[in-house]
Amino acid sequence: MGSNRHPRATVHHFAEPFTFETPFMGHSGTIPELYVAYEVWGDRRNPAVLIGHALSQNTHATDLEHPDDDRKSWWSSMVGPGRVIDTNRFYVICINMLGGCGGSSGPATIDPDTGRPFGLNFPIVTVGDMVRSQKRLLDALGIERLYAVIGGSLGGYQALEWAIMYPDFVERIVPLGAAGCTNQFMIMTNRVQIDAIQMDCNYNHGNYNDKDDSLTGLAIARMVGFTTFISPITMERKFAKYHESQREPIRDSDFHEQMFHEAEDYLRRVSGPFSKIFDANSMVYLLQTWNHFDLAKKYGSLAQAFRDVQAKTLMICATGDNLFPPYLSEDVYKAMQVNDKPARVLLIDEEYGHDFFLIPDIIFEKISPPLKEFLDE
Amino acid sequence: MGSNRHPRATVHHFAEPFTFETPFMGHSGTIPELYVAYEVWGDRRNPAVLIGHALSQNTHATDLEHPDDDRKSWWSSMVGPGRVIDTNRFYVICINMLGGCGGSSGPATIDPDTGRPFGLNFPIVTVGDMVRSQKRLLDALGIERLYAVIGGSLGGYQALEWAIMYPDFVERIVPLGAAGCTNQFMIMTNRVQIDAIQMDCNYNHGNYNDKDDSLTGLAIARMVGFTTFISPITMERKFAKYHESQREPIRDSDFHEQMFHEAEDYLRRVSGPFSKIFDANSMVYLLQTWNHFDLAKKYGSLAQAFRDVQAKTLMICATGDNLFPPYLSEDVYKAMQVNDKPARVLLIDEEYGHDFFLIPDIIFEKISPPLKEFLDE
Repeated sequence: MGSNRHPRATVHHFAEPFTFETPFMGHSGTIPELYVAYEVWGDRRNPAVLIGHALSQNTHATDLEHPDDDRKSWWSSMVGPGRVIDTNRFYVICINMLGGCGGSSGPATIDPDTGRPFGLNFPIVTVGDMVRSQKRLLDALGIERLYAVIGGSLGGYQALEWAIMYPDFVERIVPLGAAGCTNQFMIMTNRVQIDAIQMDCNYNHGNYNDKDDSLTGLAIARMVGFTTFISPITMERKFAKYHESQREPIRDSDFHEQMFHEAEDYLRRVSGPFSKIFDANSMVYLLQTWNHFDLAKKYGSLAQAFRDVQAKTLMICATGDNLFPPYLSEDVYKAMQVNDKPARVLLIDEEYGHDFFLIPDIIFEKISPPLKEFLDE
Repeated sequence: MGSNRHPRATVHHFAEPFTFETPFMGHSGTIPELYVAYEVWGDRRNPAVLIGHALSQNTHATDLEHPDDDRKSWWSSMVGPGRVIDTNRFYVICINMLGGCGGSSGPATIDPDTGRPFGLNFPIVTVGDMVRSQKRLLDALGIERLYAVIGGSLGGYQALEWAIMYPDFVERIVPLGAAGCTNQFMIMTNRVQIDAIQMDCNYNHGNYNDKDDSLTGLAIARMVGFTTFISPITMERKFAKYHESQREPIRDSDFHEQMFHEAEDYLRRVSGPFSKIFDANSMVYLLQTWNHFDLAKKYGSLAQAFRDVQAKTLMICATGDNLFPPYLSEDVYKAMQVNDKPARVLLIDEEYGHDFFLIPDIIFEKISPPLKEFLDE
């Protein structure tokens, strides 16, 4: 049972029950206590900026001791002293999403009623639930207003729900590579991932051995994910040179691996370790959260969803993002416009793929300058 | 151990050994006998046209008794009386690819030396091997010349190798959705599929129970494939209406399936049955065939590969094909041009995705007219 809780994370314990948005038959939709893990950077007296993280990430958005080391944190190009989300200017907070495995309550959390992990008895988690758990933490910390909520992918969903659910709490939102609903391509690739995890012989209906780090279904799921995070053209640029140069078999030991491409090796290198630091049930829950996110369905229509929004909105999208193609950001923009809300779309001409918002060069050259302008308004 | 051998297929048995292109250490690269399955349509005295089928298909390219029923054969819009590959005008032959499970020799074939299926002891299969096995059959049938070789995807690879390996045997080739090498995106998604199959607890290093139809890894692999065969925008058009309409849970029985999208249902519907009619080892072998196909690597360069080609070439590609983006067809065209070979590219402005060459509307409107012209030249 993997965990991606960062050692720097603080875990806040709420002894009161937490009720989820979606109670189903046989499930109360309530957990008896709530954990919310977070990290903060900067001066408490500065305006507060909330960072929403994506599915596989954790609270460690930046590492002030290693500001230039991509491997020590996941968004140090974006968050830190002198970065666009400036920790000298803002009080920055990043909260592990509900349902994850980075310290906040999730399926791997021990159910106090049974002494065992919740597993598949954990209630279904919506983005709205994540936001409500975050609000509970901010209330406990005495934070009364957010200067901005900024997040990519599933973090962008959180930013949108923040603006809808707590309109007078949020001044600005910046969803990157996000949308008002999940598109069908992503719904399909997420379903493949869920099934790959659940069809693993060792998954055991979610009651897998908590010392078992051999959940190959989770590794397969992650490989599927990786084929969608960067665009085909980026893969070609990244790996074709190896492809070309590798004119001899690189392995002798295994007949069926003799002719193995760098691209295949890469997939395994990035996916195998992931299955040891992430909880398989969390993955199932969060993929379902993703697939069920649909603001139009939840609020009647996309325009209806944004009726009471007060936050200024900057949707950032990229041309090469197959998971969140720009037209989905346009849909949000149009629905905001119907309501006369101050929204705009920043379309980045960038073929990298969905992960564009994590790439330092793209952050520094194409995201930071317009984002700084937006935050300064 | 699934098989997609069609009842109409004739299986030709060669008692002589067949040696593959790629002998590896510990493997002779030879099988002691060879089976080649095929179907034919039309008059034997007409010019012969060879159809190359794609990975999951079989010999049954058309069904003369059900010419308008897509489900009875896989290419009846293309092949039949009055179709562009006209069975009144051509002698049409479709051969099951070597390594497959549609009647030709493959890993599920019984090794006469052991009395058990070859399994992973079957030699590595290249597109060149497929073509050589097909040539052996055509020789046995007394066919001395091919008017055309036409095939999509892996069938398109076969068409290219035919023109290279037997230049004076082939007058025309028409690869659809193909290329001179497999691009990195496809190499990656193929690798995910191979690993999904091989990591299945019931796979047992390829020695799975031949009555076992519970190889979920193969179903997962197929689901991965399906997320790449049609383009994201096609998925959106195909499924978004269901997504929108489905405002209530459609299943009560399973908590975690309550909110299930049509797109997810579709994926399972098309993938589950496949795992019962296809052999998992064949899938592994053919995905590897795909990943190792690289004419530039085999022949020194793409231009070098086409040096002796005599066939006229028509590459057909489509804008929305992420697996075989048009630039790969352009690469073939340029390498043909270097050699002053009569080649051209037909770029179809069609967002459907890689499977464009299987879709009746696209075949009738956009493929058949230019293809007829090419075949009439």
